[in-house]
Amino acid sequence: MPQMPPDRTPLARIVNPDSVAVIGASDDLGKFGGRVIHYLIRHGYRGRLLPINPNRAVIRGLPAFPGIAAAPGPVDVAILAVPAGTLLREVEACAAAGVGACIVITGKLADAGPEGAALEARVAAAARAAGMRLVGPNCLGILNLADGAMLSSSLALEVERVRAGGIGMVSQSGALMGTLVSLGHRHGAGFSRCVSVGNQADLELCDVLEFLIEDAATRVITLYVEGLKDPARFAPLLRRARAAGKPVLCVKAGRSEAGAQAARSHTASLAGSHAAFAALCREAGAVLLDDPAVMVLAADALDRLPRLPRAGMGCAVIASSGGSTVTTTDMLAQHGLRLGAMGEATRAELRRWMPESHVHLPLDTGSFHDGTSEDGLGACIRAFMRDDDIGAVVVPMTTQPAMAARAALLPPLAREGGRPLLYVMMAGEVGDAARERLREAGFPFYDSVAHALGVLQALEAEAEGRGRAALPPPARPAGLALPEALPRGALTEEEAKRLVAAYGIPVTRERFAATEAEAVAAAEAIGFPVVLKGVSRAVVHKSDLGLVRLGLRDAEALRAAHAALLAAPVPLEGVLVQEMARGEAELILGARHEPGLGPFVLVGTGGIWVEVLRDVQLAPAPLRPEDARAMLRRLALWPVLQGVRGRPALDVEAAVEALVRLSWLAADLGPRLVELDLNPILLRAAGEGCIAVDARATLA
Amino acid sequence: MPQMPPDRTPLARIVNPDSVAVIGASDDLGKFGGRVIHYLIRHGYRGRLLPINPNRAVIRGLPAFPGIAAAPGPVDVAILAVPAGTLLREVEACAAAGVGACIVITGKLADAGPEGAALEARVAAAARAAGMRLVGPNCLGILNLADGAMLSSSLALEVERVRAGGIGMVSQSGALMGTLVSLGHRHGAGFSRCVSVGNQADLELCDVLEFLIEDAATRVITLYVEGLKDPARFAPLLRRARAAGKPVLCVKAGRSEAGAQAARSHTASLAGSHAAFAALCREAGAVLLDDPAVMVLAADALDRLPRLPRAGMGCAVIASSGGSTVTTTDMLAQHGLRLGAMGEATRAELRRWMPESHVHLPLDTGSFHDGTSEDGLGACIRAFMRDDDIGAVVVPMTTQPAMAARAALLPPLAREGGRPLLYVMMAGEVGDAARERLREAGFPFYDSVAHALGVLQALEAEAEGRGRAALPPPARPAGLALPEALPRGALTEEEAKRLVAAYGIPVTRERFAATEAEAVAAAEAIGFPVVLKGVSRAVVHKSDLGLVRLGLRDAEALRAAHAALLAAPVPLEGVLVQEMARGEAELILGARHEPGLGPFVLVGTGGIWVEVLRDVQLAPAPLRPEDARAMLRRLALWPVLQGVRGRPALDVEAAVEALVRLSWLAADLGPRLVELDLNPILLRAAGEGCIAVDARATLA
Repeated sequence: MPQMPPDRTPLARIVNPDSVAVIGASDDLGKFGGRVIHYLIRHGYRGRLLPINPNRAVIRGLPAFPGIAAAPGPVDVAILAVPAGTLLREVEACAAAGVGACIVITGKLADAGPEGAALEARVAAAARAAGMRLVGPNCLGILNLADGAMLSSSLALEVERVRAGGIGMVSQSGALMGTLVSLGHRHGAGFSRCVSVGNQADLELCDVLEFLIEDAATRVITLYVEGLKDPARFAPLLRRARAAGKPVLCVKAGRSEAGAQAARSHTASLAGSHAAFAALCREAGAVLLDDPAVMVLAADALDRLPRLPRAGMGCAVIASSGGSTVTTTDMLAQHGLRLGAMGEATRAELRRWMPESHVHLPLDTGSFHDGTSEDGLGACIRAFMRDDDIGAVVVPMTTQPAMAARAALLPPLAREGGRPLLYVMMAGEVGDAARERLREAGFPFYDSVAHALGVLQALEAEAEGRGRAALPPPARPAGLALPEALPRGALTEEEAKRLVAAYGIPVTRERFAATEAEAVAAAEAIGFPVVLKGVSRAVVHKSDLGLVRLGLRDAEALRAAHAALLAAPVPLEGVLVQEMARGEAELILGARHEPGLGPFVLVGTGGIWVEVLRDVQLAPAPLRPEDARAMLRRLALWPVLQGVRGRPALDVEAAVEALVRLSWLAADLGPRLVELDLNPILLRAAGEGCIAVDARATLA
Repeated sequence: MPQMPPDRTPLARIVNPDSVAVIGASDDLGKFGGRVIHYLIRHGYRGRLLPINPNRAVIRGLPAFPGIAAAPGPVDVAILAVPAGTLLREVEACAAAGVGACIVITGKLADAGPEGAALEARVAAAARAAGMRLVGPNCLGILNLADGAMLSSSLALEVERVRAGGIGMVSQSGALMGTLVSLGHRHGAGFSRCVSVGNQADLELCDVLEFLIEDAATRVITLYVEGLKDPARFAPLLRRARAAGKPVLCVKAGRSEAGAQAARSHTASLAGSHAAFAALCREAGAVLLDDPAVMVLAADALDRLPRLPRAGMGCAVIASSGGSTVTTTDMLAQHGLRLGAMGEATRAELRRWMPESHVHLPLDTGSFHDGTSEDGLGACIRAFMRDDDIGAVVVPMTTQPAMAARAALLPPLAREGGRPLLYVMMAGEVGDAARERLREAGFPFYDSVAHALGVLQALEAEAEGRGRAALPPPARPAGLALPEALPRGALTEEEAKRLVAAYGIPVTRERFAATEAEAVAAAEAIGFPVVLKGVSRAVVHKSDLGLVRLGLRDAEALRAAHAALLAAPVPLEGVLVQEMARGEAELILGARHEPGLGPFVLVGTGGIWVEVLRDVQLAPAPLRPEDARAMLRRLALWPVLQGVRGRPALDVEAAVEALVRLSWLAADLGPRLVELDLNPILLRAAGEGCIAVDARATLA
C-alpha cells in the first residue's frame, strides 16, 4: 500500500531527505541517472538510496528496483531525469507510491513551447492531486552541502570534495548554479543549500528564499532570477531576510531588452520592469548585481569577512607596487568607490615607516624605510582599520619575494580590525602558494582587481541596505485623501492637475475656455503673460503637435495664438489658459503601478533632457523624506539643484515634499494608477517652491 | 684594457646580450643577485655568464670574479642589484670596464626623494660620460622570452618554463610587469620581450617602444605608462606601430586625481592630462585601457585570435545555458557592445536546429531539437562567422557534460571563420580540463565574462584605430592664416571673437561702447533686442558677477541695464552691445595646447551643463571633418542634435565646420595658445548655422 504523507512534504525534508529514489539510475556516468547516483554516493549521502531501473538488479553495488512501486517506502524524494515522453507516467507512479517530492531534471517542457507547457501543466496537476511536491522541471536539482545530500546531476559535483559554508542559493538556471558553486569553491567559498528551481511548476523561487531565511546553516542568500511567479511575495521576503540579518544578493536577468526577451523565452515567465525590480531591491535592502561571478564572490565576502561598519566610507589601497596601487586607485571611481581621507592618527603611524612625501593613499609599501617590512605592513593596516573614514582595505598584490608569507599575515589583521580586507592576487602560477595560504586560513582572495572592486561595491550596497533597514516606516502627511469620484482612462491636463493638487502638489493657476472670449477673460483673471494650450483627450504630447503657446503678453497675442491653435490638425475641446510659470530647473516627477510589484515613483531631469539623459531615479511608494532626498542626490542634475557657477541653490525641500506627496497618491491609488507624469515641474530658488506646469495621467 | 664600444650599445644587443655580468651574484635565492643568476640559468640563457662577487670563487658552478674589472670582456650587459650606497662606485667600475649597458635593479633613487634623485643624476652622468647605457634604476630588468635571456630578478620567473609569443611589453612598474606575464602565462599567452624601465634615467619607454616596433618577434605591444620623459615622441611612435600593423595597448596611470598624484610620487615624472593622453591614443590608433589585466588578455587575443573585420559590428552570444547567455547579454552595454542583428541566411541556418521561437540572440543551444548537439553548435557558429553584422562570438560556458570536448571544437571554428571567438570558463576546478584543451590548441580563454567583454571592447577599439589609420591626413581649409599681430595674455571677449572670426567661425555682431550714448547708438545699428555685457579684462566669468544683461528690447531697457552694470563691484572699461542670438542647443567649443603633447580641441554640451554633465570630447588638432562628426556623435547631447520629441534636427555640419576651423587655429597657434573657449556656441536648426555668443582666450 502506498503511504500518503499527511501533509505536503516541507522543503526542509526535500532538501535533506531520509530516502532518495533515483528513477532511471544507471552505472553509466554519461547518463543523468548515472551521475545523480554517483554524486550522491561520492559526496557522502547518508540516507536510504533506492536506484530504480527495470533492467538492472544492482546498481553501484546497491539493490535496484524495477519501478518506484516496488521500492520500500517511505520515499521522501524521487529524482527524475527521464525523457519528456515518459515523464507524466513516472510522476504519476511516484504520486501513487506516496513519494514526498519529485525533483524533475527533465527539460523541454514549458521552456520549449506551448506543447511542453501543456505537458508540464498535466505533470504539475498530477503531483498536486496527490499532495506531492515538485522541484523543476528543467532544473538541476538540489545541492545540500550542509548535510552532504547532492540531489543533482550537475557537473559541478565532478570533484573530490565539495565545501560547506554559509552561502545559500536559489537559481532559475541550473547550469549557472553549478558553475557558480565551482567558481566559489576555487576561491574557498562554502555553500549551505543550492536549489535549482527550473520552470517552477510547483515550488518556486520565493518558497526556497523563505526556507533559506529560516535555515540555520545559511548566513547569506544569493538569487539568480529570471521571472517571479508571484512577485508580490518577493519584497516582503527580502525585508524578512534583512531583519534576520541575512544579506540577499541578486542577479536579475533582463536589464537589457535583448536579455529580457531571452529570459522570457528561457523560462516562459515575465521578467517585469528591471528598473522597478532594482528599486524594490534597494528599498528592501537587497543587493542587485549584473555579474553572477561577482554575486558569489560578494556573498563569500559577506560570509567570511567582517562587514563594512557603515555605508559611505572610503577605502585604503596598499601594496608593495606603485603600479598596482595606482591602477587600482584609477579603477575605484567606475565602481562608485573612493579612497579614504586618512585621519591624523593614521598619518602619524604611517610617518613612522616611510618618508613624509610618500604618506598618502594609495600606499606603496616599497617606500618603507626598511623596504617592504612585514611589521610596517601590519602597523599600517592596523591604523587603517581604526580610521574613521576607512571602511575597507584593498591589497592588490604583485609578484614579489615572500608573497605567500605576506598573504598569511592578512587574515588575522582583518579579523582583529573588524573590517573587510580584499586581497587580490593577479598573478598566475607564481601566485598559487599565496592563494593556498589564504584558502587554508579560510580567507577569500580575488584573481582580479575588477572582481575585488565589484565585491567591495556590493559590500557597500549591503551596508547601505543595512542602514536603511533601521529607518522607521514612511509617515503619512496629514490631510491626504483620494477624491470621492476619480476620473478614468486618459485624464485631461486639468483633471490630472486637480488630482495632484488634492495631494498638496503645487500646480499652475489655469482655466478652461471653450471660446476666444472666455480665454481672454481667463487670461485677464490670471494675469498676463499666459500660456495657451489646446485641450484634446486624444493628444498626449501637446508640444509635439504645436499645441502649446508660451509667453502671450496681451489679449492681442492671445487671440492670435487661439486662432492658430484652432487651425491645428486635431479637433480641440477647448483651450487651457495658464499662468506663465518660471523656474531655475526642470524636473520630471512620475508615478506608476507595476503589476505584481506595487506602486512606484520617479524623479528625474525633466524637459527635453528626459529622453536624452535618462537621468531618472525610481523607488517604491510611499517614500520617507530622506528617501526622496537620496533620490535627488543620485541624479546627475544634483549639482544644479545645489547651485553651480554662481546660480542659486534651488528649493530641494519643495521637490522632496512634492515627491513624498506624489508617492502617497501612488500608494493610495494602487492598481488604479496606470501612470502619471508631471513634466516639467519647475524648481525655483531655495524658499520659492516648485510648480507643476504640465501633467498627464491614466487611471484604470 | 677595458674595451670601449665604438658606439652606444643598441637596445637589440642589451635585450639579447652575448655576455652578462651579474654584480653581487650569489647562491642565495633570497637575494636579488642570487635570483638573477638562478633565473638566467633555469630559463636557458645561452651566452657567457659572469658572476661577480669578491667573496666567492664559484657561484652556481660558474667561475666567479671579484670585480667587473677582473671579468673577461667584452661584457654586453651588467645587472646590478647592489645597495644604493655602493651603486655609483659599481656603475663607474662597469663604465671603466667598457660594459655596454647596466641594468640597475637598485631602487630608492629618484623615486625616494631629492637625495636619491641627486645620486641618480650622478649615476646617469657617469654612464653617459663612458658611452654606457642604463636600464632603470628602480626596475626589474628585461625578460627576453624570444631568445631565452631573463635579465631580471622578477618572481614571475619562479616557474619551470616561460612561454614565448608575440606580446611585447614596456612597463614603468617592474612588479606589475612580472604579475602580468604570470597572468598571461596562465591563460596560455606568450611574450616576446618585456622591459621594465623603472626611473628611466637613460633608456626610456619610447626607446623601448621604438625597438618593439622594429622587432620581428613582437606582434602586439603593451605599455604601462606613468609619465613620459619626452611626450612629443609618443604619438608619432604610436602611428609608426599602427603603420607596421602592430596594435599598441596602453594603461596610463593617473585617470583619477589620487592616482595621478601617486604616480608622480612613484616615478617622479609628470603624468600629464589623462584626457589629452587618451585623445592622443585614440587619434593615433592605440587602445587605452584602465585595467592592466585586460590589457594583457586583449594583447593575447590580438596575438592569437583572428582580428575583428571592422569596428562597429555586433556580437553573437551562444552557450548551452539560458542563465549564462542572458546575463552575458545584460553585461554587453556597459562594455559599449551590442548583439548582432542576424541576417536571413543566419536565421535560416539556426532554424534547422531549433524551434523558430528560440531563433534569437543570445542563443541557448539547450533549445536545439537534439539537445546541445556538437553539429548544431558548429553550424551556428559557422553561420555567425559569415554574418555581415556579427564581428565576434562570445561563448560563456557553464558546467555540463563534455565541456572539454566542446571547448576543443571552437579553435578550428574561429580560425576557419576568421573572426574572434571568446571562450569564457567561469567554473573553477571542473573547468580546468576545458582550459587545458584550449591551452593545448594555442587558443585563449577567459575566467570571467567581465574579462572577455573587456577584451572584446579593446578589440573593438583596435579595429576602430585600424580604420582611422587608413584615412588621409586632415586637409587645411582655404584662406586660414593667423593675424599679423596677436594679442597676449587674457584676451577681451572682443579680441577672442576677432581671432576665431578670422578662422571663419561665426560670432555675434557687436560693438564696444565707452558711454551710454555710444551704447544706444550701437544697439540701434545692430537692431533690438540686444545683449549688454560689462567689459573688464579682470573678469573671466561675466555671468557669475551679473555683468550680462539679456533681451534688452529698447533704448529705455538698455539705459537701465547700462546704469546697473556701472554699479557693479568691478571697474569696467566699457560695455559690449551685442545682437541677441538664439539657438536650439548650447555647445562649448574649446582649444588648448598641452605641454609636450601639442594642440587639442574639445566640444561638449555647453551652458550650465558643462560642469554638470562633463559631456565633453577631446581630440588632438587639426581635425578631419569626419573626426569632428565622430566627436559630436559620442556626446550624450547627440540625440538632441539629431532632433528629439518633435524638435528639429540641428545644424550638425555647421558645428563640424566650426570645430575643424577651431582645430586649425589651435594647430597654427601652437604653444602660444594657453586656452580658448567658445561657451556657449548656439546651434540652430539644420541649414541655419551656429554662432558663438561668448568667447574667452589666453595667449602666451
